[in-house]
Amino acid sequence: MEESSIEESIANVVEEAKELQDAVSAHISKSSNDEQPLRQRALRLDSRIHSLRSSLESNKLIPPSLADKLDEDLQRARCIIVDGDASSLLPGHAQGSFLRMFLGPINVRASRKDVQLKVKEEYNSYRDRTALLFLLFPSILLILRSWVWAGCLPAFPVQIYQAWLLFLYTGLALRENILRVNGSDIRPWWIYHHYCAMVMALVSLTWEIKGQPDCAKKQRGVQLFLQWAMMQGVAMLLQNRYQRQRLYTRIALGKAKRMDVVWGETAGVDGQLWLLCPILFILQGFEAYVGLLLLKTAFVGVVSEWQVIFCGVLLVLMAVGNFANTVQTLMVKSRFKAKMRRSKSKQRLN
Amino acid sequence: MEESSIEESIANVVEEAKELQDAVSAHISKSSNDEQPLRQRALRLDSRIHSLRSSLESNKLIPPSLADKLDEDLQRARCIIVDGDASSLLPGHAQGSFLRMFLGPINVRASRKDVQLKVKEEYNSYRDRTALLFLLFPSILLILRSWVWAGCLPAFPVQIYQAWLLFLYTGLALRENILRVNGSDIRPWWIYHHYCAMVMALVSLTWEIKGQPDCAKKQRGVQLFLQWAMMQGVAMLLQNRYQRQRLYTRIALGKAKRMDVVWGETAGVDGQLWLLCPILFILQGFEAYVGLLLLKTAFVGVVSEWQVIFCGVLLVLMAVGNFANTVQTLMVKSRFKAKMRRSKSKQRLN
Repeated sequence: MEESSIEESIANVVEEAKELQDAVSAHISKSSNDEQPLRQRALRLDSRIHSLRSSLESNKLIPPSLADKLDEDLQRARCIIVDGDASSLLPGHAQGSFLRMFLGPINVRASRKDVQLKVKEEYNSYRDRTALLFLLFPSILLILRSWVWAGCLPAFPVQIYQAWLLFLYTGLALRENILRVNGSDIRPWWIYHHYCAMVMALVSLTWEIKGQPDCAKKQRGVQLFLQWAMMQGVAMLLQNRYQRQRLYTRIALGKAKRMDVVWGETAGVDGQLWLLCPILFILQGFEAYVGLLLLKTAFVGVVSEWQVIFCGVLLVLMAVGNFANTVQTLMVKSRFKAKMRRSKSKQRLN
Repeated sequence: MEESSIEESIANVVEEAKELQDAVSAHISKSSNDEQPLRQRALRLDSRIHSLRSSLESNKLIPPSLADKLDEDLQRARCIIVDGDASSLLPGHAQGSFLRMFLGPINVRASRKDVQLKVKEEYNSYRDRTALLFLLFPSILLILRSWVWAGCLPAFPVQIYQAWLLFLYTGLALRENILRVNGSDIRPWWIYHHYCAMVMALVSLTWEIKGQPDCAKKQRGVQLFLQWAMMQGVAMLLQNRYQRQRLYTRIALGKAKRMDVVWGETAGVDGQLWLLCPILFILQGFEAYVGLLLLKTAFVGVVSEWQVIFCGVLLVLMAVGNFANTVQTLMVKSRFKAKMRRSKSKQRLN
């Protein structure tokens, strides 16, 4: 290129850059101006739905069958704005301190509903992959323990497993917080549960895996923990299947916001509840049992490190919390079912 | 409310929800349609700037003083689109696998420049707070060691420190990845460096802190590590100050994109380089020394766990990488300075 033509082109480029900057900033401010009235409409509509629902509930004069029909209409209206494009205009759950701690003040709210759904889908498939590993990893450790390691787990593979648990629970807690910001109604307990699991994985890393002599006795806690983890893998796989089915059914019925994530042990399971519920309660019982056993080994004096006591207490607390939350969810579910039954029998009577 | 009026209101609400959904989705598609031509303009302009820069560099006929002036013009044009509102239309660095691993496919790119700058600012202040803790935490451990614990560190406080390091480096690595997605030109090595530090913190957690007898000898590695961490705290504080000053100067000069984060030990420091550079090189030397000392204790047989060897090798590698990257940055900087000097002396001659 000629000297003069380069000079000219560069002058042009600087000019165009300035023009582009003006055009883009005009576009941004116009778009946010157009958004403002829509946002206000969405907020007004949302609050009207809330007030109509409460006046519907307090009104005893309306016959139950009509009340149920109107309640369904309100749910549908709420579903349209919460599950549709308007949802990006409504305030989501505030971004909690956990996300701020790890990520800083970056916004993780997707502005488009299809992106939000992609996040949800990916979370589900992440849990599927995780559940498989949850089943395989401890099984392999336990099999090698009996067949290759002659009843005595070496420290390194167990520590790899514990590090993986730490990574896994951190990832799950971050993802669930992100889902919550994006409007999911996940119960806070299941997130706290993962915080506890993170702390436990961290503590277990500092916990020395005792070797010979008398290895079987010293490693009893680790062994039980691995067995419990295996059972949890099976339960997670079952849960994931149910959750997906239930969620898709509920989406089809327009009854659920699609961002609902009901972490495993709670709602969302219904049809095959007779299979899942006993498994969940057995798991929770086993969790508490492992915790108590750890406490026993600590107080009898076989292994008396603080980590043992700490993990024992944490496991018992987590089991109690899981149990309470599962029971609560079942109660909500049975109340909902009773209402549905009542409305159906009324309809039949009419 | 009357039965009929509630019924009517609910029917209205359902209707309004549908209308709102239509209005919002129309707004979203209109806004993205308007954005499309702007995005193409930004991309075209960006590639023209690149091609003009390369033809400017290959053209030997242009006198150096004019070439320098034209180069500055091109930099200004690039700065306008990269640092202004148009930057959200240009593709950023792809979201790497580290972020995907922890967060899933959520988008962490801020669409507005002011939000991006807020993220950057928060990152800087996070580093300030971190640097203080980096200085205080190991100092307190070392002081207590000599005054209270009689030369023998107990395991628990050291493990708390190691867990904090793990949390800290995970947070830094996540934030730096987010900054990179948001257009920062942070050198990849400083992020890899934090991955290494994460792994080391994790490994050190599984590393049993040996007690009496002969505690001073067994804990020599830990003690050196804490001393090195203290020095790093001082260096981080100094670096943060320089970086901010330099960054603000460069922003004022229109020479830097404001999203540039130059992790400590590299570019960005200039004026007081005579103070910082020796400190950085001493730190890197000390890092390698601690690594070699760990390897020595492992091979002499005082403490022969795999963790000691692993941490030793990792520290040496990190020291070498830090050194290489610091030298590279200094070379880039001196080349830039030589160019500036040349252009100034030419101007004087003219």
